[in-house]
This record gives sequence, C-alpha cells and structure tokens, in this order.
Amino acid sequence: MAAVKVFCPAISTASIRVILCLEEVGAEYERVNIDMATGEHKSPAHVAKNPFGQVPAFQDGDLVLFESRAIGRYVLRKFKSSDVDLLHGSSLEESAMVDVWLEVEAQQYDKAISPIFYQAVIIPRFYGGTTDEKVVEENLVKLAKVLDVYEARLSHTKYLAGDFFSFADLSHYPVTHFSIKIPQVAALFDARPHVKAWWESLESRPASKKVTAGLPQLS
Amino acid sequence: MAAVKVFCPAISTASIRVILCLEEVGAEYERVNIDMATGEHKSPAHVAKNPFGQVPAFQDGDLVLFESRAIGRYVLRKFKSSDVDLLHGSSLEESAMVDVWLEVEAQQYDKAISPIFYQAVIIPRFYGGTTDEKVVEENLVKLAKVLDVYEARLSHTKYLAGDFFSFADLSHYPVTHFSIKIPQVAALFDARPHVKAWWESLESRPASKKVTAGLPQLS
Repeated sequence: MAAVKVFCPAISTASIRVILCLEEVGAEYERVNIDMATGEHKSPAHVAKNPFGQVPAFQDGDLVLFESRAIGRYVLRKFKSSDVDLLHGSSLEESAMVDVWLEVEAQQYDKAISPIFYQAVIIPRFYGGTTDEKVVEENLVKLAKVLDVYEARLSHTKYLAGDFFSFADLSHYPVTHFSIKIPQVAALFDARPHVKAWWESLESRPASKKVTAGLPQLS
Repeated sequence: MAAVKVFCPAISTASIRVILCLEEVGAEYERVNIDMATGEHKSPAHVAKNPFGQVPAFQDGDLVLFESRAIGRYVLRKFKSSDVDLLHGSSLEESAMVDVWLEVEAQQYDKAISPIFYQAVIIPRFYGGTTDEKVVEENLVKLAKVLDVYEARLSHTKYLAGDFFSFADLSHYPVTHFSIKIPQVAALFDARPHVKAWWESLESRPASKKVTAGLPQLS
C-alpha cells in the first residue's frame, strides 16, 4: 500500500495537526514540501488539491482532502486500532464529547490564541512587521476566559473529552507548542494548575516529541 | 423515551442548525426557551449546560452537549436510519468529504458571512447601532472568493460533499437564510448559477421550510 501524502511546509500549525494524527496511529506517510515563500501554495498543482490555496492538502490514492481537522478525522478513522482510537467512534456518548471539545478548540480556543500567535510571532518574524499590542491584549483576555472553562473541566476529567486522550486534546497541540513560549501566554497556563498539568501531559507524548523535535523555536 | 431538549431562543443561527438536524431525522424534541434579552444564557442553570454561556445547549438524559456542530453530529448519528444518514458514516471516503465541507463551512464560509450578517442585520436591529460598512465590504470580498470555490465544486457535484445532501450543506442553512436577504449577499449568489441552484434546493427542503416558517424576517 502506497503511503499517504501530506502536502505542507515544515512549519504550519494546521499541517502539524495532521502529522501528529499520523504519528499517533503509527501510519506510514510522506511529507511533500510546499514552499510558501515562493507561493507554491497558490500554484495550480496545489490549488487542485486545496481549492483555497492553503496548507495542508492530503492524498490517499484517489482521495484528496483538505482542512486539517477533517483530514485528522479521516486519518484517525482509517488507521484506528483496538489500541488507538482518538475519536472514540464506537461510543455514541464518548464520541459526542470528543466532538464538543474539538469544536471548542476550533470555535473558542483557536479564535483567541491564533491572533496572539500571529501578532506576537508570525508578523515580526516572517513579515518584518510590528505586533499590534491591542489585538494581543484583547485576545489574552479572551484566552484567559477560555482557559478558566478548561481549568474547571480538567479538575473533573484528565483530558478534555473525558479520562482519555483524544483528537480534541491533540488538536490544541500545534498552536500551543509555539504560543506557550510567549510569556503572557505561559503566565495564563502557569496560573491554572489543571491546564498546566494537561499541557505537560500533551508535551510528553512520544508523537508530540517526535514531530516537534526538528522544528525551530519561533519565539 | 423522553424527548431530547434544546435550550435556545427562537432565533439563533447555531440553534437552528441543531433543530434542522432534529427535523431532518424526524426525532422528537422539546425546545426550552432561553431569553437572551434578560441574560438567561449567562445564568448558572444555563452555564452548567454550556460553560461558555452561549446558545444552544442540548440534553439527552444524562448527556449534556454544547457547540451546535458537535450537537448536530450526535443527533445525526443517534437518529440515523437507512433513509437518512447525513454524515455518511458507513463510507470512509464519503464521510471524509462531509467532514471537509463541514470544516469549509466553519472555517471559510461562516468567517466571511457571519460578520456581514452581524454588521448589516444584528447590530442595527438588536443593538440600535450603526453598521460598519468597511467590515461588510471586506467580508463581501472574502465571501465572493469562497463562493467562487463553491461554484466550481457545485458544477461537478450536486451538493458540497458529493451527489448527496449532507450535514455539510445543512450547516450552511441558518446564517444563509437570514443573510441572503441582504442585497449584496443575494447578488453574490445570483451571479453564480450552481451556487444559486444549490441554495434553492436547500430552501425547498421540508425541514428547512418547517423550521423557518415561524421565524420573522430580519432584513
């Protein structure tokens, strides 16, 4: 069976989400580099795979997918085993809780932390621009409120969807790995012991270590 | 079996997403009103169900869920039948395409159309404020680009995930139902014949008609 392919640059939070899924299930895969510096993500060949000209794109034989959370679901379903089922698809209730906290990641957490990451790291480092501190401050307030909900949740369950590691936890990993180096973000985690312990458990996973081992520090 | 409960006001795009799912599968349900005008969504009773103090919340016996797209998945899995399976969970490839276009709805379409709806309708009608035309213009440009991708897609398949109606299509319905009354949004649909035909097929579904029959026009 030919390995599945992920079309992405080495550093992209959405792409790392997909690669983490592949590592967690132990699937064979090939990363095909997309050079965003030369605009390769807007090339006809890439747009044929991802019509929004974004990364990543994914290919498994004739099936071409995009949107990292959708690709992640496919990978986790296709390669699930009795040992590893990060969607908990065999339980209606558990899979519902995975879905709830996956949506929280996309709709609440990511909408607060990604603007901070973009302003504090991406703009100065990759675009030579100046951080808009007002955007950072506004989103730190939002992120604090989100993490208050997480702290309450994680005082009852070890992971977000329950006492089991799931795609909902994994999906938080990429942007947090880079953003927690920002002192104000680190302070929000440090002030919430259950969130901090949860984050340390994600950082200590072999798949997390393997995927981030070769990546540069961004901040 | 006690009917499931949806805690929400009559008008809320996320809540209508859940109610449409319940209508499409023919499930019994009870809508428990949440009066946002008096801040009931921030009450301890509601926050116990939705920790972000948003609508909707959902209850099925001991199971309490929030985030409309996650609730929708649960409803569609729990009440699926040989006639109605809007997630196409029995096919790895088809369910992947449903997931892709559900993510496109959340990450691309909603991020463009919801700010337009909020500025052009919600702010003047519910908050007595003035529309920020710059935000509307910027997001009309974004929405046009998203709809260009939809037009290309829908020239090959009848619905977004393939030649079958799915949760990916349904999920677009609520905000579009209200926003298409905004002339600039209607113009974007009118200019794209496949998008227009797709929208008309969604509007003509019995569940859509039933759910929106009692709602006021907002614009």
